Amino acid sequence: MKLTILGCYAATPRTITNPTSQVLEIRNRMFLIDCGEGTQVQLRKNKLKFSKINHIFISHLHGDHFYGLVGLISTFMLLNRQTDLHVYGPKGVKEIVLLQLRYSNSYTGYNLYFHELDSKESEIVYEDEKVVVKTIPLKHRIYTNGFLFQEKVGDRKLNVDAVQEYKIDTCYYQKIKNGRDITLDDGTIIPNAELTFDPIQPKSYAFCSDTMYDESIIPIIENCDVLYHETTFLESEADKAEKTMHSTAKQAAAIAAKANVKQLILGHYSTRYDTIDLFRQEAETLYSNVLLADDGKTFEF
Amino acid sequence: MKLTILGCYAATPRTITNPTSQVLEIRNRMFLIDCGEGTQVQLRKNKLKFSKINHIFISHLHGDHFYGLVGLISTFMLLNRQTDLHVYGPKGVKEIVLLQLRYSNSYTGYNLYFHELDSKESEIVYEDEKVVVKTIPLKHRIYTNGFLFQEKVGDRKLNVDAVQEYKIDTCYYQKIKNGRDITLDDGTIIPNAELTFDPIQPKSYAFCSDTMYDESIIPIIENCDVLYHETTFLESEADKAEKTMHSTAKQAAAIAAKANVKQLILGHYSTRYDTIDLFRQEAETLYSNVLLADDGKTFEF
Repeated sequence: MKLTILGCYAATPRTITNPTSQVLEIRNRMFLIDCGEGTQVQLRKNKLKFSKINHIFISHLHGDHFYGLVGLISTFMLLNRQTDLHVYGPKGVKEIVLLQLRYSNSYTGYNLYFHELDSKESEIVYEDEKVVVKTIPLKHRIYTNGFLFQEKVGDRKLNVDAVQEYKIDTCYYQKIKNGRDITLDDGTIIPNAELTFDPIQPKSYAFCSDTMYDESIIPIIENCDVLYHETTFLESEADKAEKTMHSTAKQAAAIAAKANVKQLILGHYSTRYDTIDLFRQEAETLYSNVLLADDGKTFEF
Repeated sequence: MKLTILGCYAATPRTITNPTSQVLEIRNRMFLIDCGEGTQVQLRKNKLKFSKINHIFISHLHGDHFYGLVGLISTFMLLNRQTDLHVYGPKGVKEIVLLQLRYSNSYTGYNLYFHELDSKESEIVYEDEKVVVKTIPLKHRIYTNGFLFQEKVGDRKLNVDAVQEYKIDTCYYQKIKNGRDITLDDGTIIPNAELTFDPIQPKSYAFCSDTMYDESIIPIIENCDVLYHETTFLESEADKAEKTMHSTAKQAAAIAAKANVKQLILGHYSTRYDTIDLFRQEAETLYSNVLLADDGKTFEF
């Protein structure tokens, strides 16, 4: 899994900071999460291929999380995209995009599917043979979801030395990877455990932005490998956090600790602070594995 | 008059080029013309004060000319703007902006006025004591206007030496600047020509983007000081220009020559060409006073 932060600052695009957007590469899929203004330029700067994005997840309809979406959809048109594009986001995202395409008399040459969300319960919004994506209902000023990206348990790994020693034909390899025992020509049964290793441990990534402190998300994100949790403010601005339904660094750390996640990444910083390291310092008073997101930064896990 | 080019490239925002937006400073007013994605970052980079923008003119509803508008309007909210904001643009611009504000549950703390345009004739859309702005109906794939910004003839300039020599009281100065003769206490009439100099010559700026070659704009822009005319293509791509209803550099130059403008600025370049100097070279085959717009470039006239 590789996470590229395209933007992780609150509120408005600035000369050197960008509103929320990130790319998660997981099992050869590339998911775009949120799409603030300037996302397409950030994709270019980070040399991420437009054509590999087939699924876009929008957390909520505040501008700093989706004002770059219609422009990206338009650019896909200009690049003569043919592949289907899926957008997952709150009810309204379809109306907003299509209204603008209609007034510009433009039609996508590719199929554009909107999967509009309005459930207040966590639900599966995407699933294929290797990955599943669930919503994480968040508490913000408008309807908002985070997203939990989970790898599925993969095939068992072939023990190449063992299968060659038993002279097993390659046509059985997939069955072996699926967990089957093998019966040799002489009737001997070779148990699967002799022919395979355990599969790669599936990983999970939870994206939570924006939200006030909310323990009801803990059962959804519990034990996940990496949690990205917003922290617009520090505790010194706890009143502002509460009023605007955002979190402080300490609150983000409390969620990470209580949900027993392996790693916390902080982001969505207000630009009022001199250094984002203050967020790390405050979070570390409650939870130790804290990393700071920053525009253009990548994380591999 | 000072023109700052925020963006002058066609189609999509890129790492170092921006879609259309420019700022015209004229008689202490600051007008924003078009507002492609990234405009607010370009305003910051060029150190132009957000608070001085009270009037935004949108030529048409293709994304590369207005996808930055809703974000700028939102940023004005976050900056606690109080001053009225006026947006002039095609019918639809209001619906598009308000739909997005509604879904984000946001309301501007300032008055936001939309002046929607649908006339096919040139009309005055803005006028105050010093400046008048008229539409320039253009021919493009969707309803599009250019804008002609004209300074009004100002007051005559006081000849300070002369008024002091005649010991004229300062309370008469404004009347003198308005063109009045003065009768001294002894009955002598001093003609205004002795007390004043001619006013500063009013200037005019015509912004034409996007449009196919269209001579019907000539009577509107005739003799203007500066014409910004789009040239998405060179003559080698004349077929593409015609099909997409854009202009070539040669066509822009032909309009400049026929309208007898004093200066032509080219812009809205397709990014397919290695150097924008090719546009200048082609235009100069028909018209000599050619300048090239470029992002971050300023022109004073």
